[in-house]
Amino acid sequence: MGCAPMAHLLWSEIMTYSPQNPKWWNRDRFVLSNGHACALLYSMLHLTGYNLTLEDCKAFRSLGSRTPGHPENFVTEGVEVSTGPLGQGICNAVGMAIGEKHLAATYNTPEHEVFSNHTYVICGDGCLQEGISSEASSLAGHLGLGKLIVLYDDNNITIDGSTELSFTEDVGMRYESYGWQVIVVTDVETSLEGLRAALASAKAETGKPTMIKIKTTIGFGSAKENTHKVHGAPLGSDDMRATKIKFGLDPDKSFHIESDVREFYSEAVKKQSSAYGEWVAMFEKYRTSNPDKAKELDRRFNHELPSNLFDSLPPFTHGVSKDLASRKFSESALNALAPLLPELIGGSADLTPSNLTALKCSTDFQKSTPENRYLRFGVREHGMAAICNGLFAYGAFRPFCATFLNFIGYALGAVRLSALSQMGIIYIMTHDSIGLGEDGPTHQPVEIIESLRAMPNILVHRPGNAVETNASYELAIMRNKTPSVICCSRSTVKSMALSTREKALKGGYAVKEEANPNLIMVATGSEVGICVEAAEALLPDIKVRVISMPCREIFDEQSDEYKLSILPGNVPTISVEAGAIGGWCEYAHYNVAMYRFGASGPGGEVFKKFGFSSSNLVAKGKELVQFYQGRTVPNLNDRMKIVLESDEGH
Amino acid sequence: MGCAPMAHLLWSEIMTYSPQNPKWWNRDRFVLSNGHACALLYSMLHLTGYNLTLEDCKAFRSLGSRTPGHPENFVTEGVEVSTGPLGQGICNAVGMAIGEKHLAATYNTPEHEVFSNHTYVICGDGCLQEGISSEASSLAGHLGLGKLIVLYDDNNITIDGSTELSFTEDVGMRYESYGWQVIVVTDVETSLEGLRAALASAKAETGKPTMIKIKTTIGFGSAKENTHKVHGAPLGSDDMRATKIKFGLDPDKSFHIESDVREFYSEAVKKQSSAYGEWVAMFEKYRTSNPDKAKELDRRFNHELPSNLFDSLPPFTHGVSKDLASRKFSESALNALAPLLPELIGGSADLTPSNLTALKCSTDFQKSTPENRYLRFGVREHGMAAICNGLFAYGAFRPFCATFLNFIGYALGAVRLSALSQMGIIYIMTHDSIGLGEDGPTHQPVEIIESLRAMPNILVHRPGNAVETNASYELAIMRNKTPSVICCSRSTVKSMALSTREKALKGGYAVKEEANPNLIMVATGSEVGICVEAAEALLPDIKVRVISMPCREIFDEQSDEYKLSILPGNVPTISVEAGAIGGWCEYAHYNVAMYRFGASGPGGEVFKKFGFSSSNLVAKGKELVQFYQGRTVPNLNDRMKIVLESDEGH
Repeated sequence: MGCAPMAHLLWSEIMTYSPQNPKWWNRDRFVLSNGHACALLYSMLHLTGYNLTLEDCKAFRSLGSRTPGHPENFVTEGVEVSTGPLGQGICNAVGMAIGEKHLAATYNTPEHEVFSNHTYVICGDGCLQEGISSEASSLAGHLGLGKLIVLYDDNNITIDGSTELSFTEDVGMRYESYGWQVIVVTDVETSLEGLRAALASAKAETGKPTMIKIKTTIGFGSAKENTHKVHGAPLGSDDMRATKIKFGLDPDKSFHIESDVREFYSEAVKKQSSAYGEWVAMFEKYRTSNPDKAKELDRRFNHELPSNLFDSLPPFTHGVSKDLASRKFSESALNALAPLLPELIGGSADLTPSNLTALKCSTDFQKSTPENRYLRFGVREHGMAAICNGLFAYGAFRPFCATFLNFIGYALGAVRLSALSQMGIIYIMTHDSIGLGEDGPTHQPVEIIESLRAMPNILVHRPGNAVETNASYELAIMRNKTPSVICCSRSTVKSMALSTREKALKGGYAVKEEANPNLIMVATGSEVGICVEAAEALLPDIKVRVISMPCREIFDEQSDEYKLSILPGNVPTISVEAGAIGGWCEYAHYNVAMYRFGASGPGGEVFKKFGFSSSNLVAKGKELVQFYQGRTVPNLNDRMKIVLESDEGH
Repeated sequence: MGCAPMAHLLWSEIMTYSPQNPKWWNRDRFVLSNGHACALLYSMLHLTGYNLTLEDCKAFRSLGSRTPGHPENFVTEGVEVSTGPLGQGICNAVGMAIGEKHLAATYNTPEHEVFSNHTYVICGDGCLQEGISSEASSLAGHLGLGKLIVLYDDNNITIDGSTELSFTEDVGMRYESYGWQVIVVTDVETSLEGLRAALASAKAETGKPTMIKIKTTIGFGSAKENTHKVHGAPLGSDDMRATKIKFGLDPDKSFHIESDVREFYSEAVKKQSSAYGEWVAMFEKYRTSNPDKAKELDRRFNHELPSNLFDSLPPFTHGVSKDLASRKFSESALNALAPLLPELIGGSADLTPSNLTALKCSTDFQKSTPENRYLRFGVREHGMAAICNGLFAYGAFRPFCATFLNFIGYALGAVRLSALSQMGIIYIMTHDSIGLGEDGPTHQPVEIIESLRAMPNILVHRPGNAVETNASYELAIMRNKTPSVICCSRSTVKSMALSTREKALKGGYAVKEEANPNLIMVATGSEVGICVEAAEALLPDIKVRVISMPCREIFDEQSDEYKLSILPGNVPTISVEAGAIGGWCEYAHYNVAMYRFGASGPGGEVFKKFGFSSSNLVAKGKELVQFYQGRTVPNLNDRMKIVLESDEGH
């Protein structure tokens, strides 16, 4: 209720949009960062003619409705991003503003302005307390994102009570320190003039993002106004009636819109959406003058790929090409694809020389060089991931970002939203195990890989050689509704004669074949080579099949027949991964895994200390074969199949 | 090298400490937030006589050394907290300063100042770019932590290159907006006067934390000075020689300390540690005048517990006491323990009315009421967890903190450090499944519980009733070197006749016994009651044993005999948890679990939609029994035992 004047002004006077064309490329973007206030957003979408009926609004927060308890981009037309987890929305908006700036610099011509939209945000105190918003806001100031306009609902109330309890900083001064324009509006409850003028100043300032700090009263007009009681709970029927009377509404009517309101909005929408027709006409001329650019934009916004794209991935010949760290293969794959995929945009959280994510075909996106595609995120992992989500939501982008695998833990809140919101972000995560060595346990991931595998709709790749690294990129690019985490090593990985693109794309396959094995080892990444070494050493007494499983989620998608041919379940099986066991007990009778945090020391020594050595694998392999000698091996595949629901919705 | 003057001044003139008594309660705390610069910290610890030899220093970053690649509190005496993951250290320091302020307010008397130490931090640009430091710094300003002094090594260099790439905000202005005193020092490379004066002003300002912004040159004196090349890489031998010559050192000597330096530091340490003896004498007098307080402090710093503490936990009688949401039982347990455990200090990230963590025996810790124990963290999950780590590191505290379970994902970087650094933080996480209902998938944890279980040294509790909730608290309090995550429901859980304290403390036990079951269901939290309902419905054809497993880690610690008596492995077994499968495939032949994100709607309906209903469990139970009819059930316990190393060290 406190935000109502802002929404009213934005939709009726300020924003350019077309409810019939909700995916219009140059629409102004709106993000409700305080997603819990979504009743307001749904009201505006309904009033302005988006595909949201009054019945939908009445079904608020009910199962299967188009009006869930927090806005979800994949459920409701007109919702740009899923918000609710505080702080994410404003960071998404930073990504959207970067997106507009880059596309404008890349595609606009002196004659035709294809991209020129603004990005508007409403956010509350909660979003601004979260560290993630500090990260992205600092970067937005640095990048001078002049088309980003944040309306800060400064109501001094959070769930616990007054912001006096914990949030007494000078928010405006903080945003000025980031290089933002800050405007204060105090009269929004009695007049729209102040806000109207502030929005005009915000649009006039093209070199800086703007925060408009708007003093409001939570639950304005109700008996509970200005208290935290109205934050999460409904007003109650008496208060609701009294409030309606106060605003001149019929207290007996609910979900009722007066005809004058309908008319007002109908007129307003006509005005605000008139730009759409003009834009379409302009873009037809653009297409005539710039057919290749127009075609490329079509391709990008439709998430189509150039034909034969993956033929460009670097060739690798077993026994000829050099063995390197998989982060080096990642560098090559990324740089092979980037020139052909202008939608690849991204960077690292200040670990470019370690992550090896610099682009050879482009350089830094900065305030004065927005045509470039390499983003210097700074040491801001969480903000980085949320900005990538915003870029994806803008459309026409396949963002990538990078840090050490362990520090994806800092970004998990936003990574989860990539998965939930079906955004194919490519997370390039190097230094993927205790094998990173000297930096020690604070930097060595142990639990992270299994943690990520527990998340729905995300691919966790851990390639073991160049061919598999290429396949990881191919899968990541192909799956545009699923984020991918590509885990790469700092240490050298070993080439395998049996690795082919086709096999690697199945997520799991034999790198050492034995038709009738006595033992199977299944491993990922840098551990695959150790298994092959152990397998050789176990011959001739024990015949070992070694499975490389660069992506467990993809393997799980294969046919039962294929999966059984790889992992029959009734042959003694050891999993070997320098991480937590987690789901490996589904496939393996014994696990060489990490049960504790790592240790600082040279990578090779650390690997040995924790049993990731061929000698230990030989010993454990012998023990396991002995363990089942002369008796039936429990068949781990003899389980009742879990049939998943097919519904993809909400 | 750029930070050397700061460290020199702190250890030789400013800080009060006693190398022979590294755990002295009132020592000044020092935190190297930019942990990658730990060579400096190790040098100072060696120079000042801590238990760190020159040989230790030479073993830098080697396996098993006392000088790992990043400082680790559980490895090296004199290291207060493990740092390296950027931004954590400065937040830990905020916790330490809160700790000092609270203990001073609680235990000091007009005659005796038991607690009066300062907390000093050195941090770099990286720490200040991380959102976590924004969160804790804003709170530190709000709380007016006058004894917190941050030395900001403002060298304009990060790993990617100049801070011009991504970090051009006005940091000083930002800290002023938080309510800090900010002092700029520019002459530290030619004189110590500026820094000395700044430190004096910092100590003089008792109502605000202070940031001293110190202009430095990275790799000062070397050929690579002022470049990012010196951030992570060694200088190289030529440059090392030249640098030594420049500073008047013998270029042929390494790990050599001139005798005048030794003497200087020997004298300085005498001076800086003289306060220790005075403090000990004072505390003896304090003990005489305040025997109870002194004894309580001994107990708290030694992590001892009052005898019969757990008798205070709320009694619960099956069939008599009321069934409630487990968050309500958590509220009761917390409030039963808090009056007896003054070391329990904590709060919520602005979800007090939802998490139910308010203390009845104390109220808000604020600037002017530091004797209180309830912390209003604001919407700052990551900062909250790191502050709790700092409180724990201070000593004498068992911090707790709270948010929705899903948002522990925001705090994961700090939660991991609780586990790694052996800090028994109590994470009270409510709204622990899709059962929370209407807030929808952005708020519904699905993967989080299994994610946490993948982490070493952490207990994940998901109690299913009041007795189990009490046991979760008992285990959490008992294990002071292991953090606990207590996952609590928003919905009502069902009392079980067979639940007892003793059984619940084993982590897993039968809530419905069958001597010779045809089927076993193993569940946690709110799903236990559904299983029992299904078990009743399956009688008499199928006899079901239902296992409640409130803590899998604790269950795994039990004897093989006990575990086999509960889960024999060769009886058809279904796991039932509204989360990812992950490790459940170790115990169960079939899993009723979450394979996708949740949905917005009433909690009960959401539960049913995803199969967490007795009718679905009945159907699946019948199917599974049928599936194995007449043949051998694969024995999931027939696996070779994994023998863990016992070494607890680094």
